[in-house]
Amino acid sequence: MTDSATLARALPSIAYAGNPLDRADAVRSDPARLAAVQAAPGARLLVLDGLAPEFGADGGLTWAPLATAGEGAELVFLGLDADGQGCFAAVDPALGGSTAPAAPNLRALLDAMPAQDLAIYGGARSLVDWHARHRFCARCGHATRGAKGGWQRSCTNPACGAEHFPRVDPVTIMLVEHEGRLLLGRQPRFPAGRYSALAGFVEPGETVEEAVAREVLEEAGVRVHSVRYVASQPWPYPSSLMIACHALTDEPIIAIDHNELEDARWFTRAEVAAALEGRPDAPFGAPTHTAVARHLLEWWMVARG
Amino acid sequence: MTDSATLARALPSIAYAGNPLDRADAVRSDPARLAAVQAAPGARLLVLDGLAPEFGADGGLTWAPLATAGEGAELVFLGLDADGQGCFAAVDPALGGSTAPAAPNLRALLDAMPAQDLAIYGGARSLVDWHARHRFCARCGHATRGAKGGWQRSCTNPACGAEHFPRVDPVTIMLVEHEGRLLLGRQPRFPAGRYSALAGFVEPGETVEEAVAREVLEEAGVRVHSVRYVASQPWPYPSSLMIACHALTDEPIIAIDHNELEDARWFTRAEVAAALEGRPDAPFGAPTHTAVARHLLEWWMVARG
Ligand SMILES: [Zn+2]
Ligand SMILES: [Zn+2]
Repeated sequence: MTDSATLARALPSIAYAGNPLDRADAVRSDPARLAAVQAAPGARLLVLDGLAPEFGADGGLTWAPLATAGEGAELVFLGLDADGQGCFAAVDPALGGSTAPAAPNLRALLDAMPAQDLAIYGGARSLVDWHARHRFCARCGHATRGAKGGWQRSCTNPACGAEHFPRVDPVTIMLVEHEGRLLLGRQPRFPAGRYSALAGFVEPGETVEEAVAREVLEEAGVRVHSVRYVASQPWPYPSSLMIACHALTDEPIIAIDHNELEDARWFTRAEVAAALEGRPDAPFGAPTHTAVARHLLEWWMVARG
Repeated sequence: MTDSATLARALPSIAYAGNPLDRADAVRSDPARLAAVQAAPGARLLVLDGLAPEFGADGGLTWAPLATAGEGAELVFLGLDADGQGCFAAVDPALGGSTAPAAPNLRALLDAMPAQDLAIYGGARSLVDWHARHRFCARCGHATRGAKGGWQRSCTNPACGAEHFPRVDPVTIMLVEHEGRLLLGRQPRFPAGRYSALAGFVEPGETVEEAVAREVLEEAGVRVHSVRYVASQPWPYPSSLMIACHALTDEPIIAIDHNELEDARWFTRAEVAAALEGRPDAPFGAPTHTAVARHLLEWWMVARG
């Protein structure tokens, strides 16, 4: 097993991680400080078209003076930049909220975005989308309004008063190994030839390790053991926390749940290497480099080499 | 560093984990199968008073025939037992939903509950509480109704049609180490003398490792590195996924955020050992054995010994 420092040098950083903004929790909870940050001439607004960013000449994000947001705009405070200036996004009142992944052409542009901008965008997208999908109180049905710089929504019904917080959905995603080969699957919505790690949401009442074992058994009929955590990633479609794991099995017979997967197969180390290198003779297409599934495959090539 | 097999033998299992029921995802999604499971004479109902269990003579859960639930009860399907019989819980229509932790006297009884029953209870409690707090659609404000055996709620407004899924909130909880000592803190709500691991919710746009670093910096002013995952636990108050980690720091000067913590201090290995043993001369009280914070402390005594 390769030590973690060697691994860190060998592996690319995780996409959507590394947001350089200071979340400045103390500013959010202090209306006077938040108002001062907002009123400062250097405060800036992330330019969004609904949930999509406007791409700058360098492929990065575009910002405008916060004053362009207009009176009464619903603002979320993304954090302070390196100069201590406030960064905000606005929730478009027309935005109904979408759980759909970003359109393929948008995803291609995002895959090429500078890393820190992608991380800022991901966090902002999750937060803006959460506001658009939570304009009402799930407890009583009355309208909610944003609070604490957009890190809370409060019910406007005095008899209820429920406080709601941005949702983050933990998802397990896992490589299953048997005698040096990896179990990968494809969902019907994948591009032709693509195989990736199996994945599924963590449910109430289970550990990460139990969720991994349940998902692999449900989707591929394979019982695993020795589940270990590898890495995590925020995934803003709409707001997942990807928890990437590795597990072993002694029973490699696959029984596919065709409601979940179109196919699932074992791939050799040489086949995984060919896919990661994008070789024309590779037996499958690897996930794109912003997916934590690709990070898992690259981790496996180094850590279990 | 102790290897993981040795660790697994040395450490008690994690409370609220190890639910023995088969979640039977395929039954949930198939109305005919679900109806058959529900109609079987062996189907049973978890006896709850609101969110609290009725304790049996052995301190475990109490079950009744499912038929006692009554016509029109809102049922959630917990899974199949070892005999293939369906296990259910009912959402009390009077239940408004609570985000408060269980009352201290209830917690003491739960701390003594047999492990598998505690795991079943935790999952059921999170799910029942989620239903009680999500009777309306956060997207449009209309009523929702349960679907898929209680693993979904669907908006009844045809113009909306949003589907909602049980919420699981990832929380990081971490031991910070400096030269063989551990940073622990106490919240004002803790029993007298208790110190525990720092903790906080993962926010949209950050990794587990980033959330750990942010929380420790916010609450104690300490910068950490080398964050590693240790274990996870479902925590049903109301529905957290505790992600337990270890981190190192080179800068042990503490700056407490008194909005979050009443105190934070460094404790030696001998002091942690005394607390875990419950010795009268221990300088602090350790978390109860169902808390993952205690598991982290026990892990640390073995793994970093
Ligand atoms: Zn309300
Ligand atoms: Zn709706």
